[in-house]
Amino acid sequence: MVEYRFHHHPIYRRLLEHAGRMNGPDCHLGRLAAAPRRLDAFSATGGGVFYDYSRQRVDGAIMDLLLELAGEAEVERQFAAMAAGEKVNVTENRAALHMAARSFSSTPVMVDGRDAKADLHNVLEQIRLFSTAVHQGEITGGTGQPFSHVVVVGIGGSYLGTEFVACALEAFADKGFTLDFLANVDIHNFAAVWLRIVPEKTLWVVISKSYTTVETMANEDLIRRHMEAAGLNPSQHMVTVTSKGSPGDRGAGRELAAFHMFDFIGGRYSVTSAVGGVPLSLYLGFERFERFLKGAEEMDRHARKAPPSANLPLIAALIGVWNTSFLGYPQTAIVPYAFPLRKLAAHIQQLNMESNGKSVDASGRKLDEPAGTMIFGEPGTNAQHSFFQLAHQGKAFPIDFIGVLNPQTQLDEGKFKGVGHQQELWANLLAQSTALASGASNDDPARSFSGNRPSSTIVVEDLESESVGRLLAFYEAKTIFEAFVWGINPFDQFGVELGKVTAGKLRTEMAARNRDSGHDFSEVDPINRRYLQMLFNGRLA
Amino acid sequence: MVEYRFHHHPIYRRLLEHAGRMNGPDCHLGRLAAAPRRLDAFSATGGGVFYDYSRQRVDGAIMDLLLELAGEAEVERQFAAMAAGEKVNVTENRAALHMAARSFSSTPVMVDGRDAKADLHNVLEQIRLFSTAVHQGEITGGTGQPFSHVVVVGIGGSYLGTEFVACALEAFADKGFTLDFLANVDIHNFAAVWLRIVPEKTLWVVISKSYTTVETMANEDLIRRHMEAAGLNPSQHMVTVTSKGSPGDRGAGRELAAFHMFDFIGGRYSVTSAVGGVPLSLYLGFERFERFLKGAEEMDRHARKAPPSANLPLIAALIGVWNTSFLGYPQTAIVPYAFPLRKLAAHIQQLNMESNGKSVDASGRKLDEPAGTMIFGEPGTNAQHSFFQLAHQGKAFPIDFIGVLNPQTQLDEGKFKGVGHQQELWANLLAQSTALASGASNDDPARSFSGNRPSSTIVVEDLESESVGRLLAFYEAKTIFEAFVWGINPFDQFGVELGKVTAGKLRTEMAARNRDSGHDFSEVDPINRRYLQMLFNGRLA
Repeated sequence: MVEYRFHHHPIYRRLLEHAGRMNGPDCHLGRLAAAPRRLDAFSATGGGVFYDYSRQRVDGAIMDLLLELAGEAEVERQFAAMAAGEKVNVTENRAALHMAARSFSSTPVMVDGRDAKADLHNVLEQIRLFSTAVHQGEITGGTGQPFSHVVVVGIGGSYLGTEFVACALEAFADKGFTLDFLANVDIHNFAAVWLRIVPEKTLWVVISKSYTTVETMANEDLIRRHMEAAGLNPSQHMVTVTSKGSPGDRGAGRELAAFHMFDFIGGRYSVTSAVGGVPLSLYLGFERFERFLKGAEEMDRHARKAPPSANLPLIAALIGVWNTSFLGYPQTAIVPYAFPLRKLAAHIQQLNMESNGKSVDASGRKLDEPAGTMIFGEPGTNAQHSFFQLAHQGKAFPIDFIGVLNPQTQLDEGKFKGVGHQQELWANLLAQSTALASGASNDDPARSFSGNRPSSTIVVEDLESESVGRLLAFYEAKTIFEAFVWGINPFDQFGVELGKVTAGKLRTEMAARNRDSGHDFSEVDPINRRYLQMLFNGRLA
Repeated sequence: MVEYRFHHHPIYRRLLEHAGRMNGPDCHLGRLAAAPRRLDAFSATGGGVFYDYSRQRVDGAIMDLLLELAGEAEVERQFAAMAAGEKVNVTENRAALHMAARSFSSTPVMVDGRDAKADLHNVLEQIRLFSTAVHQGEITGGTGQPFSHVVVVGIGGSYLGTEFVACALEAFADKGFTLDFLANVDIHNFAAVWLRIVPEKTLWVVISKSYTTVETMANEDLIRRHMEAAGLNPSQHMVTVTSKGSPGDRGAGRELAAFHMFDFIGGRYSVTSAVGGVPLSLYLGFERFERFLKGAEEMDRHARKAPPSANLPLIAALIGVWNTSFLGYPQTAIVPYAFPLRKLAAHIQQLNMESNGKSVDASGRKLDEPAGTMIFGEPGTNAQHSFFQLAHQGKAFPIDFIGVLNPQTQLDEGKFKGVGHQQELWANLLAQSTALASGASNDDPARSFSGNRPSSTIVVEDLESESVGRLLAFYEAKTIFEAFVWGINPFDQFGVELGKVTAGKLRTEMAARNRDSGHDFSEVDPINRRYLQMLFNGRLA
């Protein structure tokens, strides 16, 4: 790492000046967006996606500087190094090879003398064979009944991406499987899942890289207990997705099968690995999972090859950094006008906030200001009837609008007020980005709209498997490009450690009380002592 | 309204000075929270809820000033005026009587010469009779088969609260009904619902105060079309919840029944009215809905009667205003450590952001700075594996932790690492609030935690119907108290109007093209013209 430091770079200061300039009335978005050829100049198509930033608070000079800053940060070199298997996760001395999981080219990617792509492809082939055998009834549960329920047992990156893709493509889930998620160490979560499934027909997919994640292990333990109580051998109803050699990598005997994950793919980037591959192939069929991978690969190729000024995820990343670090917006909403994308925001929330919510740069130096932004969202038009009052008249924040040209379903839409559902949805999407940008004055301040509220619009032609892969890869690459511009490492997450250690201490106290009802928590700080007493009493008082 | 103006009040300036003081190292939360009796001094119990603000960045002097400010804003008088039926929604000249919907006392509340409570109780009795008759099979669909699917057709406030309560209490849904929500004007949403239901056994509950909400009317139209195509008379499968005299208030003939809503209860405050009452009574049984109302009433009574310094929703509101307007936090997370509360954040997001995301005060004067804050959240521990990296090491934001002492289910939890699931969940909840407040220093900046990150902890004893009502009413009252302190009207939402008008113009353009394929959108601005062309071509290019 050379001496690039985001907040200390001369371009940083120049961009701050431009941010000040953008607050002037001449730079109001209503005016910017009305310029002829604004959309041509501030949009790009690539990797099967259209990205429009014409309603972002930028102009040509700002984009030029942002691209120059990206050059100074060597984002292209870093992205290529990542793709080539270099150990870009410097704090953990690991490569970051989620793109290799969906690379169908023949070029090997060597890590520590092994071809990572060959290892990933072997697992993919194992998934193909396994899912096909399950679908054909060749692999069954202990009683010989075919499987028809899949439950993903995993938390955070082990399920959020899979949940997003499964929801996006559920209209195509024709293998006769239900898919549920058991993430939380919450007895309500377990009870709800247990009620929905038929134990004899259930395949539990336990996902943990280390196979020591407390929530997942507590659930695995509880599943074994309840399956046994139901007279079943849990090992005949369980597969694992885990690291080679982990406590969950015992294969036949203790599990039906173990699918390997690798330390060069982090949880939040793992949807296209076995983490997503096993459950999604069972739920949607292997062929659709493969098409999803190919869509992601298409966007990866674009992200690697497109020149910076036409590179969608890079431009989106620069807009993200601009909005966060220069214009000072504290959050970004993701609002897809497509019900199947309803879990996209939750996935990107994890992907982006866990990657970029950092206080130190990649060399371990404290940043002048923390990186990252808060991500949230709901589908439109639902969001219009929820938080858009604040979006229009409260403190402004940028929004990613997502539109889909052709719906998945051919169901008769009818016409209401002269338009079908899909058209009404688009009328609303376009109206929101327009109204947020332009605003409208009114003599009554309560009915006045200041406008100048930025948004991007992202369009895909359809919601087939490939398009879902493209969107996923777009947001992954955007997240990583943002990190490279900020100069941080998007692949570690030390920020979650302190909570784990603290929970361990409290767990030890609870376990002591479980063994000895006289244990009085005298070693615990007064606030937590009160809570432990409440919990063991079962009463507020 | 007298001359109280939040940003111009002398106490506002004094509190700003205290906010500066709180940034000093002496006021680090790790130190504040360690003070003896901190929890006793900064917590309160009332209305069946425990509220702990000991890990908020306040001290006695600040709380005194905040309470003084609340006094200056006359929040008690305003809250009482609201309860008494005064037209506190000044911009729309309406009362705000959601509390009357769950008031079981005999005191009338007069609005325009009518007893609002009597009207509400008549509707409640109508709900009791109707839901009981449906459960007993006395009211059936057109083919005589009993109903077993309920679909709520409504958007925003017409479903988010109901969805929250239905998820919270689904473990008790023993009436043999499924409950689905058709909110969005998205053909995918309709298709998903249509696939899940059996038309002959389905009761559609169409909810719209004006019965002109575009999304809901487009869905109502589509339902009628598809029910007819299935050979059914849609009117025999539909009830409405709407205003007296609206186009949906035709009762028997066009609908099985019409349940009235009133202009003195806004959508986002309407869960305890017929909006929640009809679907929740069908799904959970009327008795549970009534218990839910009684829990809400208990919290209402506390909010009205408790002295300010012991008034939970008022204190929570003051903390909210303090964090937003003085400490400058741009967002608040709601993280319930209870899977059944997984839709709480989405409901409060709407309730709070639509109420308080305002730029003008209740007299219509522009605020110096917009009010309101961004609300988001996911259940814990899931959230720990998602956005908590940023919560610990990125830009700080306050969190509401919610804990439940006794789970709904008695399922065998087993023991893992010496504790059960419920205990593990609590170990994590307490660990997070502790770690966020205290932080931990480390020679390695990447493993260092600055701490001083505020949170509240809200505890209920169980998740029975009453507790869900208490939580709901707590957040309603908190939202309203915040508004009173900011001096804004939390009951209107003019900010959603511009988008509706703009969507109407675009819809007209689309309808024109549907009628005439030669219509070329020449009147539309260039950016939207390009999108309309894309949409009608079905292609990005």
